[in-house]
Amino acid sequence: MSTRIAFLKGHGTENDFVIVPDPENAIDLPPAAVAALCDRRAGIGGDGLLHVVRSAAHPEAKELAAEAEWFMDYRNSDGSIAEMCGNGVRVFARYLQRAGHVAEGDIAVATRGGVKTVHLAKDGDVTVGMGRARLPEGDVTVSVGERSWPARNVNMGNPHAVAFVDDLADAGDLLSPPPFSPATAYPDGVNVEFVIDRGPRHVAMRVHERGSGETRSCGTGACAVAVATARRDGAEPAVTGTPATYTVDVPGGRLVITERPDGEIEMTGPAVIVAEGEIDAEWLAGVVG
Amino acid sequence: MSTRIAFLKGHGTENDFVIVPDPENAIDLPPAAVAALCDRRAGIGGDGLLHVVRSAAHPEAKELAAEAEWFMDYRNSDGSIAEMCGNGVRVFARYLQRAGHVAEGDIAVATRGGVKTVHLAKDGDVTVGMGRARLPEGDVTVSVGERSWPARNVNMGNPHAVAFVDDLADAGDLLSPPPFSPATAYPDGVNVEFVIDRGPRHVAMRVHERGSGETRSCGTGACAVAVATARRDGAEPAVTGTPATYTVDVPGGRLVITERPDGEIEMTGPAVIVAEGEIDAEWLAGVVG
Repeated sequence: MSTRIAFLKGHGTENDFVIVPDPENAIDLPPAAVAALCDRRAGIGGDGLLHVVRSAAHPEAKELAAEAEWFMDYRNSDGSIAEMCGNGVRVFARYLQRAGHVAEGDIAVATRGGVKTVHLAKDGDVTVGMGRARLPEGDVTVSVGERSWPARNVNMGNPHAVAFVDDLADAGDLLSPPPFSPATAYPDGVNVEFVIDRGPRHVAMRVHERGSGETRSCGTGACAVAVATARRDGAEPAVTGTPATYTVDVPGGRLVITERPDGEIEMTGPAVIVAEGEIDAEWLAGVVG
Repeated sequence: MSTRIAFLKGHGTENDFVIVPDPENAIDLPPAAVAALCDRRAGIGGDGLLHVVRSAAHPEAKELAAEAEWFMDYRNSDGSIAEMCGNGVRVFARYLQRAGHVAEGDIAVATRGGVKTVHLAKDGDVTVGMGRARLPEGDVTVSVGERSWPARNVNMGNPHAVAFVDDLADAGDLLSPPPFSPATAYPDGVNVEFVIDRGPRHVAMRVHERGSGETRSCGTGACAVAVATARRDGAEPAVTGTPATYTVDVPGGRLVITERPDGEIEMTGPAVIVAEGEIDAEWLAGVVG
């Protein structure tokens, strides 16, 4: 840790990241270092860390190097490893563009969840393919205090319960996980979205993310909400044969979700770089110990 | 906002700050810009912003320029102005040292609360004079849930209620302000400290800061706790004629508080710079509008 470490800070709908460019995979980033960097008060602060490495230089991505030049080595804020992050990969692509590594248009990004196609639009929005939803059968109910609502069970690789409510305030303070039933629906817990209508094909949501509490944005949650709303509206693309596009307002901004007739889901929204600089390597060495 | 804006991020016992060096007071920092920079997800993130200006270049500090070369133009995270911040001025001094503007030893810093003497020790700790405490007469009680405790009313320029408890967990989740009585004791609300003993002249505290909820550190709160504990221990310096020094553990680290027989209080602790870089001026202009 004797050299200086470059970083940037950015966000997508206020899902925020510390970005560490490291093309040759030369920087040692043990979990304690990631946790220290993501600490909002003692470090820089972020929901996660985007370690930017050439696929050819990373053992986990070497075989993807012909398909995707860059690998998103994504880390959660506690230092653990994650496969993918929809808002993260959009911010990752914005960084590659800003650094001059890629141009506008379609680019491929290697992730632990496979190669993702990301589109950098002229207007600044970034689109990422989020895969397909699974909709497990069976009725689900979520509760807040004394009230409960039927919810749609949507799996985007992670589990979601989508409940339509009259008012986003019905979700309460979302400090604790909303109880659900039956317990067998989500043996590992669930992300719960509360949704209201804002207009034609336009909804707003709040989310309680499993393990994190209420967050400003959740990419898979916004997709789950669009999928559930399309079913409610009789607009399921596999049935109608036409794509369904929903604008989904999250507390941290606005996402646009399109589900195609083949089930593939795309998420579009802003991706912003706020600042860049250098981490004090002496500080980092001190806290990592 | 067409030029690049330098910044640093640092903290004192996890009371954290965005630092904006601006010797000639050339950067326009309206409240919206400060709030955007201090936003933990959409910006850089901090409890406040330290605008570093030469006293001679700032209308509010010009007349202090002969006494103190540098002015801490302190801003709260919502963009409003504050007089002083004990942890802030310690981090401010650390920045001046790092930038080569000052050396180890005593320096004077101009603030809206007057000129403060700050000591930069060889071991890295930073000491600041916090003024004197006032101890208004009268019994005060604070409550959490069904339980209540007698508390000491200590005013450090801002109001505090210091309660000695058996276990820091007794304070509960501190999400809402602990009720107090009588209501007349604190017409504008109060910062509440819950304190346990850790050893001789060594305590630990948790704090609910008025308007902010539980925080990782509160400089005036740590001073209030030391003052209240010295009275409890029969060690009031004005009575004994000797200084009283207490180690006060806060959730974000450790502070050492000394009260002298003349009533002056000094606070010592770490002050750390974590990273430095440049703010994306285009982004800032966009969010400030």
